[in-house]
Amino acid sequence: MSSLNHQVRLAARPKGLPSPSDWNHTEEPVPTPGDGELVVGISHISLDPAMRGWMNAGASYIEPVEIGDVMRAGAVGRVIACEHPGFAVGEHVYGNFGVQEYAVSDGRGVIKVDPSLAPLETYLGTLGMTGMTAYFGLLDVGKLEQGDTVVVSGAAGAVGSVAGQLARIKGCRVIGIAGGSEKCRWLKEELGFDAVIDYKAQDVRAALRTAAPEGVDVYFDNVGGPILDAVLTRLARGARIVICGAVSQYNATGSVQGPSNYLALLVSRASMTGMVVFDYAARYGEAAAELAGWLQDGSLISREDVVEGTIADFPDTLLKLFAGENVGKLVLQIAPA
Amino acid sequence: MSSLNHQVRLAARPKGLPSPSDWNHTEEPVPTPGDGELVVGISHISLDPAMRGWMNAGASYIEPVEIGDVMRAGAVGRVIACEHPGFAVGEHVYGNFGVQEYAVSDGRGVIKVDPSLAPLETYLGTLGMTGMTAYFGLLDVGKLEQGDTVVVSGAAGAVGSVAGQLARIKGCRVIGIAGGSEKCRWLKEELGFDAVIDYKAQDVRAALRTAAPEGVDVYFDNVGGPILDAVLTRLARGARIVICGAVSQYNATGSVQGPSNYLALLVSRASMTGMVVFDYAARYGEAAAELAGWLQDGSLISREDVVEGTIADFPDTLLKLFAGENVGKLVLQIAPA
Repeated sequence: MSSLNHQVRLAARPKGLPSPSDWNHTEEPVPTPGDGELVVGISHISLDPAMRGWMNAGASYIEPVEIGDVMRAGAVGRVIACEHPGFAVGEHVYGNFGVQEYAVSDGRGVIKVDPSLAPLETYLGTLGMTGMTAYFGLLDVGKLEQGDTVVVSGAAGAVGSVAGQLARIKGCRVIGIAGGSEKCRWLKEELGFDAVIDYKAQDVRAALRTAAPEGVDVYFDNVGGPILDAVLTRLARGARIVICGAVSQYNATGSVQGPSNYLALLVSRASMTGMVVFDYAARYGEAAAELAGWLQDGSLISREDVVEGTIADFPDTLLKLFAGENVGKLVLQIAPA
Repeated sequence: MSSLNHQVRLAARPKGLPSPSDWNHTEEPVPTPGDGELVVGISHISLDPAMRGWMNAGASYIEPVEIGDVMRAGAVGRVIACEHPGFAVGEHVYGNFGVQEYAVSDGRGVIKVDPSLAPLETYLGTLGMTGMTAYFGLLDVGKLEQGDTVVVSGAAGAVGSVAGQLARIKGCRVIGIAGGSEKCRWLKEELGFDAVIDYKAQDVRAALRTAAPEGVDVYFDNVGGPILDAVLTRLARGARIVICGAVSQYNATGSVQGPSNYLALLVSRASMTGMVVFDYAARYGEAAAELAGWLQDGSLISREDVVEGTIADFPDTLLKLFAGENVGKLVLQIAPA
């Protein structure tokens, strides 16, 4: 064990895509736990499109990361020192530990995870916030019903790939929108999507006309921008649009592109509803149990895109999300499991 | 009674604001009723922002008016000839009679109205589609609850002025957005709105910060455009936006301005839902009875902007809606009540 804790801190608020100068790489002594605290040696760090929003100033659904703070991140690791009665050295835990090698915690929001049930990275993906977002977004906010035609954008991403499979498991026809033939092949052949649209190669609006001739009942939107506008033209009566994110817009330097076809909501008596997964914290257990069951019986495939490196690789790894380079959940592994 | 029926027909699909050349003025013999039919002498014609949408080609919530057809309009008149067992000569009726002096009907969608209970024009306004739209939009789609902070745009218009008063009657704090000091004065002093914002003179976003410091629970949107974007910045957690219309965008010659602040739906866990009043036809009676009660006890004020003229005045009168010149329900009266 190193005696230093390497960290990545926010140095400046990015304009557009985060650049190297927006980050500050620091080191501190590895913390020791005070009374009621534990120290975690972090092995896996979650990378999420939402991180880009956390780097902006101003009110949102969560406080911004302040300049000089360790970058916020969900992470998994092992307890290496413990003065907390609820935890023990050697246990694996998930928490909001930040982009660093070691974190001290008072235990709030820290959840024990079992590496014998699933790989640690899966607790950042399908069994973590990613899976929770797909589960509650689709079932609660999207009010999914058997037989619905469901469209998922960012379908090969972390949340999208789970959301699409959930829709299939629930007896829906599911259409995935993703960029590139390899992602589309994976969605169709390995995850069992009924149809896929490669937005880099196809006209999304025309392709939807073929793939969803009766219209779209639920649209789970991770991307915003022109794809949201295209799906708006194909809504079925009473359609539900779940606004989970808008990765196409997070690095916009001008104003966000609003959906100019939003009056389709009126024509179709449809709704567009925003969601934040934290609201469902009291029900994470219920969702995780059901998701774990589907993982075990093979009906749900969890894929993580694990980048092995050091904490210093965080800034470049984050950019993969905005270039659409990851398939499944993007994770930075900085230490053995 | 004239022996000619003067009509206004759609001659061309407008680009932007309708111009005189988009209309064709025709005359035909006054129809005689066939078996099971009635003929109505029209006295009052409804003018609605939605008419602009009906003039466009393409699928919407209702078929477009075809080139050469009599322009679609709700209207009130008196039965002048009748071979229908359910009606009698002399009765007053409401129906989708079109922009003409006389209409023949098989009675479908025709409703008897009682001029001793309310002036005939009120059956096009508060006791007609206007009132139904406000009632179901606010109560059903907007899920209004006592104590909510409610914002209504186009607040001095037909639907807006009813919606705002309904919110007040239901124990909500209501903020009206309208153009011009006289409209704002009327809303505040005569209709009992708690606050008003003159969008022509004030910064809507800043004014909302003052008028709705805790945020907006329900936004009843009749206008779209920059006002929708402003309200999006002031949503309370769980806010409901009712998309009733977007009069600021109906004559756009380019693409509609989408709400660039729509990601506020996510931040605020809010929803934006479209409505079409026709879906509530089975419940019109319930709403009309309740609205009539409030009219009678004086808690609800119905105002109609009645233009007296001939059928040839329809095109110019319609433009008043898009210039924001009317206060309350715009009606063209072409014959005595």
